[in-house]
Amino acid sequence: MSSQAKFKKDKEIIAEYETQVKEIRTQLVEQFKCLEQQSESRLQLLQDLQEFFRRKAEIELEYSRNLEKLAERFSSKIRSSREHHQFKKDQHLLSPVNCWYLVLTQTRRESRDHATLNDIFMNNVIVRLSQISEDVIRLFKKSKEIGLQMHEELLKVTNELYTVMKTYHMYHAESISAESKLKEAEKQEEKQFNKAGDISVNLLRHEDRPQRRSSVKKIEKMKEKRQAKYSENKLKCTKARNDYLLNLAATNAAVSKYYIHDVSDLIDCCDLGFHASLARTFRTYLSAEYNLETSRHEGLDIIENAVDNLDARSDKHTVMDMCNQVFCPPLKFDYQPHMGDEVCQVSAQQPVQTELLMRYHQLQSRLATLKIENEEVRKTLDATMQTLQDMLTVEDFDVSDAFQHSRSTESIKSAASETYMSKINIAKRRANQQETEMFYFTKFKEYLNGSNLITKLQAKHDLLKQTLGE
Amino acid sequence: MSSQAKFKKDKEIIAEYETQVKEIRTQLVEQFKCLEQQSESRLQLLQDLQEFFRRKAEIELEYSRNLEKLAERFSSKIRSSREHHQFKKDQHLLSPVNCWYLVLTQTRRESRDHATLNDIFMNNVIVRLSQISEDVIRLFKKSKEIGLQMHEELLKVTNELYTVMKTYHMYHAESISAESKLKEAEKQEEKQFNKAGDISVNLLRHEDRPQRRSSVKKIEKMKEKRQAKYSENKLKCTKARNDYLLNLAATNAAVSKYYIHDVSDLIDCCDLGFHASLARTFRTYLSAEYNLETSRHEGLDIIENAVDNLDARSDKHTVMDMCNQVFCPPLKFDYQPHMGDEVCQVSAQQPVQTELLMRYHQLQSRLATLKIENEEVRKTLDATMQTLQDMLTVEDFDVSDAFQHSRSTESIKSAASETYMSKINIAKRRANQQETEMFYFTKFKEYLNGSNLITKLQAKHDLLKQTLGE
Repeated sequence: MSSQAKFKKDKEIIAEYETQVKEIRTQLVEQFKCLEQQSESRLQLLQDLQEFFRRKAEIELEYSRNLEKLAERFSSKIRSSREHHQFKKDQHLLSPVNCWYLVLTQTRRESRDHATLNDIFMNNVIVRLSQISEDVIRLFKKSKEIGLQMHEELLKVTNELYTVMKTYHMYHAESISAESKLKEAEKQEEKQFNKAGDISVNLLRHEDRPQRRSSVKKIEKMKEKRQAKYSENKLKCTKARNDYLLNLAATNAAVSKYYIHDVSDLIDCCDLGFHASLARTFRTYLSAEYNLETSRHEGLDIIENAVDNLDARSDKHTVMDMCNQVFCPPLKFDYQPHMGDEVCQVSAQQPVQTELLMRYHQLQSRLATLKIENEEVRKTLDATMQTLQDMLTVEDFDVSDAFQHSRSTESIKSAASETYMSKINIAKRRANQQETEMFYFTKFKEYLNGSNLITKLQAKHDLLKQTLGE
Repeated sequence: MSSQAKFKKDKEIIAEYETQVKEIRTQLVEQFKCLEQQSESRLQLLQDLQEFFRRKAEIELEYSRNLEKLAERFSSKIRSSREHHQFKKDQHLLSPVNCWYLVLTQTRRESRDHATLNDIFMNNVIVRLSQISEDVIRLFKKSKEIGLQMHEELLKVTNELYTVMKTYHMYHAESISAESKLKEAEKQEEKQFNKAGDISVNLLRHEDRPQRRSSVKKIEKMKEKRQAKYSENKLKCTKARNDYLLNLAATNAAVSKYYIHDVSDLIDCCDLGFHASLARTFRTYLSAEYNLETSRHEGLDIIENAVDNLDARSDKHTVMDMCNQVFCPPLKFDYQPHMGDEVCQVSAQQPVQTELLMRYHQLQSRLATLKIENEEVRKTLDATMQTLQDMLTVEDFDVSDAFQHSRSTESIKSAASETYMSKINIAKRRANQQETEMFYFTKFKEYLNGSNLITKLQAKHDLLKQTLGE
């Protein structure tokens, strides 16, 4: 009994083997489930992406149409205004109007680009995604087919192993049985032999005992037969064991190959091209978005260039050129001699000479004083203008802070609450600016009055100087 | 009469002067009109810009909200899917899912950025534009005030010139009249003198003629009086002419200064800060748009990086790790000795030795043949895979052609009609791809069968080799 407890029973071995095979079978089923789930996840992802890009395409189209409408609203206004107002025809020559027209051009460009985005999403990205879906389904089907074949192969191998194991068991059992039968025969022979010993002692006594001799022969013959049977069974068992061992090695190698290589290859079959095709789809989307951005950037650069060229002086000259009749200086007032008066110059003969000379010196000193005074006014004027210019050209237009994404959404401040555009700051700055402006105008009037007076006196002074110098 | 025709009459001169002054007046009025029109054009431009940015802000907000809704729709789907499906929890570890999540992140980023654009347009750009409108109105008012003063000044100067010219005319007329009266007296004196010649001839005859002597004296006195009057008038005329000439110079200088400098300064007053403030407004708009673009670009770069990292191999390992119980190789099948069979190795004693040796050699040559055959299959398989890979990784995702703005709008082709995405091309490429794929799978099955057989035979071969080698 103790030796029997040491050895597994046939049934135990078979049961263990069947359990082990069943576990493998379960794993294979689970593997298919896993691949199926993976494919389903991919199909879901592809469907989500298609839905996403379909809706995004709609959003882009709506955005594009809105921008187009917006640009058209103002463009048609400009067209009709040009038709009805002659003077508006050359408005685009003015730098602010040029900027405005370029903003409209940019709006149309953005509109077209977002329409292109819609087109690419609808007719390229989505088409690709649906093709990838088809591919995933087709490849999963084909891979499953191959997988099933692999699984059949595995089960065939394990079944073979089961068969050779049973054969080994059978031959071994037969071998054991033949051995025990042989051993029994040997025991009988030994018993006979012991009897024969007694016989040989008594040989002389009982020379002839034919029945005893025939029984010895019979035993020997049986032993030989059993020996042959045992040898035959032992050979069969050895062959069966060898077969079992060789199949065991083959089965383990096949199972190991499946788990280490074939499952991986099977997944590769399912994956075939999925990542590459998806990457190309994403790259199409990226190419569209990057190109939209490049186009947008080009357009913005054109506007920026126009803004750099905003030029008050050049615009002033353009306006004065456009209305040149209004701004061209009139003819000089000519000296009109009265009734044939032949004198046409200031006369500096006596008796007016002394008086003119006095007047000349008075003018000279008056001018000197006035010029000094007006120069002071001009200096104040220039300084005030500089202050105004500093206010007017303050670089308060950088809104990059509003586009920081590293902060949490909550802490993104409204652009309006930024330093420069807070209501208090605006009010302060404007009050300050207008105060300076008021002061500038006061000083400007003062300067204008001074320079007007100087101009007139200077003209008289110069004429007198010329006259008196002669 | 001929000399009279040569000189302009007073009235003519006055009329001409008045015409000239009237023309200047008309020009001044027209200049105001021009400035007013300029200001009105600017106000119209500013109003158009405000309307434009208000509407663009609305469009941006709508776009932003649509994008937000779009992202949220899929994000909430992902959240709920994560809660309900345990296995979905680690989906983001898979590279395609990672790309998809980043596309959603980018959508939210775009949504936020376009909302920021709305904010900046509404609370910064439009505020600036309305302030510039206020400035234009205020500055035009102030400039007009100064302009009116300039015009008054000009008219004052021309009035003065008119006055001194009239004075000159008057004194010159008086001078002429005094001169002619003097000349008349001189004629009478000469007549008297001629009579006196007769007198001297007849002196002896008529020594005493008292009434004749008194008339000579009378004439001389008159002549002296007229001489004095003439001199006085001539001086007055000279002074008046000098005044006229000096005022003429002053007036011409003042008019010239006005046209050459003051009008320009007046326009500068109207313009004060207009271009600078408008430039800052445009730069705010540009800063917003450029920053939007930078942010968009950063987001796209993150996606591109994720697309670069789309990796089938790594995903396969992730999936196998996630389901590691399903993919881990099972325990090896152990040799189960039957009923205490102590032999646990392949037995290569005679009589099986010869047979095993034969079997071994058979296996060896069978394996050699199989390996050569399967190697050929493998080569075909690899070449087919390469062809498939080339198809799957073709760089067909560049859509930059669709964003060319140099062409006219009409000639911009739909992205769908481009080489790669035309329906005929797609169909051809897909047919070609699927044919190659089918061939690949056929070859793969063949290879798999071959390698399975080789694995099993190799295991047996190796075991026999080991056994026979001992």
